[in-house]
Amino acid sequence: MPVSAPLLPCFVPPIITLTTDFGLTDAYVGVIKGVILGIAPEARIVDISHAVEPQNILEASFLLLAAYGYFPPGSIHVAVVDPGVGTSRKPLAIRTPVCTFVGPDNGLFVPVLMAEDLSDRDGRLRPDASAVELRNPKYRLPEISSTFHGRDVFAPAAAYLANGTDLSALGPPVRQIQPGEPIEPRSDPDGVRGQIVHIDHFGNAVSNISAGSVPAGAIVSAAGQEIGPLSSTYQSGPVVALAGSTGLIEIAARNGSAQEQLGLRVGDPVQALRP
Amino acid sequence: MPVSAPLLPCFVPPIITLTTDFGLTDAYVGVIKGVILGIAPEARIVDISHAVEPQNILEASFLLLAAYGYFPPGSIHVAVVDPGVGTSRKPLAIRTPVCTFVGPDNGLFVPVLMAEDLSDRDGRLRPDASAVELRNPKYRLPEISSTFHGRDVFAPAAAYLANGTDLSALGPPVRQIQPGEPIEPRSDPDGVRGQIVHIDHFGNAVSNISAGSVPAGAIVSAAGQEIGPLSSTYQSGPVVALAGSTGLIEIAARNGSAQEQLGLRVGDPVQALRP
Amino acid sequence: MPVSAPLLPCFVPPIITLTTDFGLTDAYVGVIKGVILGIAPEARIVDISHAVEPQNILEASFLLLAAYGYFPPGSIHVAVVDPGVGTSRKPLAIRTPVCTFVGPDNGLFVPVLMAEDLSDRDGRLRPDASAVELRNPKYRLPEISSTFHGRDVFAPAAAYLANGTDLSALGPPVRQIQPGEPIEPRSDPDGVRGQIVHIDHFGNAVSNISAGSVPAGAIVSAAGQEIGPLSSTYQSGPVVALAGSTGLIEIAARNGSAQEQLGLRVGDPVQALRP
Repeated sequence: MPVSAPLLPCFVPPIITLTTDFGLTDAYVGVIKGVILGIAPEARIVDISHAVEPQNILEASFLLLAAYGYFPPGSIHVAVVDPGVGTSRKPLAIRTPVCTFVGPDNGLFVPVLMAEDLSDRDGRLRPDASAVELRNPKYRLPEISSTFHGRDVFAPAAAYLANGTDLSALGPPVRQIQPGEPIEPRSDPDGVRGQIVHIDHFGNAVSNISAGSVPAGAIVSAAGQEIGPLSSTYQSGPVVALAGSTGLIEIAARNGSAQEQLGLRVGDPVQALRP
Repeated sequence: MPVSAPLLPCFVPPIITLTTDFGLTDAYVGVIKGVILGIAPEARIVDISHAVEPQNILEASFLLLAAYGYFPPGSIHVAVVDPGVGTSRKPLAIRTPVCTFVGPDNGLFVPVLMAEDLSDRDGRLRPDASAVELRNPKYRLPEISSTFHGRDVFAPAAAYLANGTDLSALGPPVRQIQPGEPIEPRSDPDGVRGQIVHIDHFGNAVSNISAGSVPAGAIVSAAGQEIGPLSSTYQSGPVVALAGSTGLIEIAARNGSAQEQLGLRVGDPVQALRP
Repeated sequence: MPVSAPLLPCFVPPIITLTTDFGLTDAYVGVIKGVILGIAPEARIVDISHAVEPQNILEASFLLLAAYGYFPPGSIHVAVVDPGVGTSRKPLAIRTPVCTFVGPDNGLFVPVLMAEDLSDRDGRLRPDASAVELRNPKYRLPEISSTFHGRDVFAPAAAYLANGTDLSALGPPVRQIQPGEPIEPRSDPDGVRGQIVHIDHFGNAVSNISAGSVPAGAIVSAAGQEIGPLSSTYQSGPVVALAGSTGLIEIAARNGSAQEQLGLRVGDPVQALRP
């Protein structure tokens, strides 16, 4: 068995992740990667998802929130769900103490900034976060289309940042960004009330309720159907509520689709209440 | 925030892109990447699309045409939509002043070569393009199946080219390739008449009419339905005609699918005529 | 045309491949890549497939069997189809003379180990294979969820192995793994009887019968319908039986879907018998 030598210490540029609603049937995602690699030849690009429901900003926020914490410090997260492309909405890069976000100013990044206590719900940035509007033509493609800023504005910005270009070179500072839809349930002494924010590939229904926030022994129900107390594995029963891989409560069916078995949909109410 | 040092100048092998009708459910695309990385360990591989309609050569041509210009010079574009695999059709590598194409001789590369004025519609190559038939067994896998030349012939050829192997080493020269279906509309003094060549992930219907080629004030219609003059953003109206990200006119619905709303299909006529 | 210099000899870490039933709509696969690249920044990651039917261990085995032989020696193959996640099933790394497998102990790797004569059907490993249970907390994420060992256990294990960590450091040795469902047809003097194990993206129905194992002139039938003798290309007839790219007999329709035309399904009987 050829066993590898340990890695030599050498320069490795930051990871650039991509989260979009572009799908994988067109050339869009490949083109974005071509633009990035033309500017930053050694960039390592990782797809988070290109299957965001078209123009569903909240779902993109949720996927980014589930993923960004697992990437090494310095990673650059590009997210393009952009119903306002071609209008006056600003293109942004936002730097936090651990990573950089690049994408449109439409609330997409607010939930993840709120999770790090770097923004309030109204999009006012805290001092530890800095943001710029991507306006410097030197760091965009020569021609800007009105329909594909992922290629013309966001990909070049991410690539130049990966190469070490100063954030401040990309454009004028911004302290107030568009407010976001917060991914937050309501708590009271009886327990926690939230909703389903995502249905995953297996038909598991992911809620916005953190498993750590519910009272001991709470009973979970979804869309008016009682599921039971929190379980620890998918095997505990035919349909279970458990802490999913992001720490959020999800409703899952053993060897099947909870979405289909219970008729669940994004937006349906979920509760975890004292019995 | 850990800011990266600038990239050191070091050897980075060319990008290899992949455009196929293999889909992503089987192991086919992964196997092609395994073969490439076994020969060219540092190759950077980018997927353009694996969702070409099975055996739809024209759609592969369109996707390649939309994408290849955004990759850095020297890139190697492998495209495998290959209904004639296992018959006597030639496997080709075609080098142009900016990049190299690798794939079957079935007309797939003719539209992109015509766009660069490197071939006529009948597949006669101009002097600036050189092509070879991939016949040298040294640069193929030891065993050639009759069904999967992407793995056995095209992946090794692309990998050896990425490693710096001379094009001429791969096989005998070819000056005449199979003719292609040109992606070209008809123009007359009234305006331009073309057709829909692709429906994208959002349900936008992409035509073969370049927005720059239509008379000022022209009115666009698709499948006999009047859309209106060219708009500048997706937000201008419920259904709009605008210059898409490739410069071609596309029909789009605001926050929805133009394909569904207007019942459009690939092949439907599109016109941009003086009012 | 910028022609590349030959590759310099330098350290390139092993390839890590991924085969899962996670799909590409969620952030799961991106998160696994983030964890790997956080530990092994230069790892090259290749997707084999993320479209395994949820919890179909046998299909994952088939895809791995079709793919692993095309990756360079030393590659690390992570496969996560894991209905028992969160129960007491063991997490494993298995090293063979040519590669390493990482994933759950549920039979998934048995067919590929049997193909290399490194295990019997009951999961007893031969001396050339070594395996460990991934129990050392140093090579796992700090927190282990009960639902996503792909992220918490298997991704870190693969990344540390790619960095050159000794297999034996990851946990205690294992000599007996769970038995697998073998992918094996029955032979007798009349010919070979097997079944369909996979329907591919084109609608080709792949059987478990190796084309090299059938008597000369044998007639192939599938689901009780006679197809004919083995052909050499997809073009030989409207529906043909031929040796597919993995050497297994597959039933294919010219320019169409054999699955649809003949109503074939996974599990349907396939025979190749003397006339």
